[in-house]
Amino acid sequence: MRKRHFCTVLGLQVLATAAALPSRGQTSSPPSTSSVPGPIFAKGQPAPAANFTGQVWVQGLVGKEDQYPCGAGSVQFAPGARSHWHQHPAGQILLIVEGTGYYQEKGQARRVLRKGDVIKAPAGVEHWHGAAPTTAMTHVAITPDLEAVPVVWGRAVTQAEYLGKP
Amino acid sequence: MRKRHFCTVLGLQVLATAAALPSRGQTSSPPSTSSVPGPIFAKGQPAPAANFTGQVWVQGLVGKEDQYPCGAGSVQFAPGARSHWHQHPAGQILLIVEGTGYYQEKGQARRVLRKGDVIKAPAGVEHWHGAAPTTAMTHVAITPDLEAVPVVWGRAVTQAEYLGKP
Repeated sequence: MRKRHFCTVLGLQVLATAAALPSRGQTSSPPSTSSVPGPIFAKGQPAPAANFTGQVWVQGLVGKEDQYPCGAGSVQFAPGARSHWHQHPAGQILLIVEGTGYYQEKGQARRVLRKGDVIKAPAGVEHWHGAAPTTAMTHVAITPDLEAVPVVWGRAVTQAEYLGKP
Repeated sequence: MRKRHFCTVLGLQVLATAAALPSRGQTSSPPSTSSVPGPIFAKGQPAPAANFTGQVWVQGLVGKEDQYPCGAGSVQFAPGARSHWHQHPAGQILLIVEGTGYYQEKGQARRVLRKGDVIKAPAGVEHWHGAAPTTAMTHVAITPDLEAVPVVWGRAVTQAEYLGKP
């Protein structure tokens, strides 16, 4: 029988928060008759301070208990907030759904993220992501293969790295 | 070596459209300095009329070529538009990012979908989804396991089913 591959949001450290929470129920939004302005998903819980700079929140959407080969969560970065350098053993997909931010892979230039952008972080490639200095950023993170080696966290992103200075 | 599981958007019929297109590049949005109102993702291409009622567009985001265990696409339903009844061999996750719509599994009551809702369609369970009569609806569809049996399409949703009549 094929082994199922479970999922995480930003890695086990965040998963400890995100997957311990119930992922969003299937009909959990408040009643309304049309779409409403504002954030798509609930803000969720604070991300572990050990792996992030600034204020970051994680809302689990699809967790280990759902037994899909990918998990998903909504991650909101306050202006200036960002992850530490890290890598995912099976890569990660980021769908930018709100705001402006940055993404950088080790050895590459920092890239600006805007609503609608899609980031495909390769497996095992060190990178960081976060909001721009004056604009919040929210992305959906789709992460495969929770049963693989957990995310490997590195050091904080320096202010020079964050600002894209050489 | 572990077999990779590839991905589709709504199934092979849609994938023929969605994955043949380039999935969104990683920095493809127009320049701006802050988040902008309006749709998150590009509208994409018309979904195959054989499997949908009304106007539906699919924008591939993560495709087979990306070699993740899940694919992803943005699917926009015009007011009144919906899929036919269908089932996915490995299930499908729907993240409602805009508007109002409906989702129904065979033998269950029709459910209202609103921005922020998460639908976890089980593997092999027949269902349909679409927009409400007077409001468009956009969801991100995350679909595992393209290499499994392709999506099985059934008949169109009747107007009575669409309106939730017994």
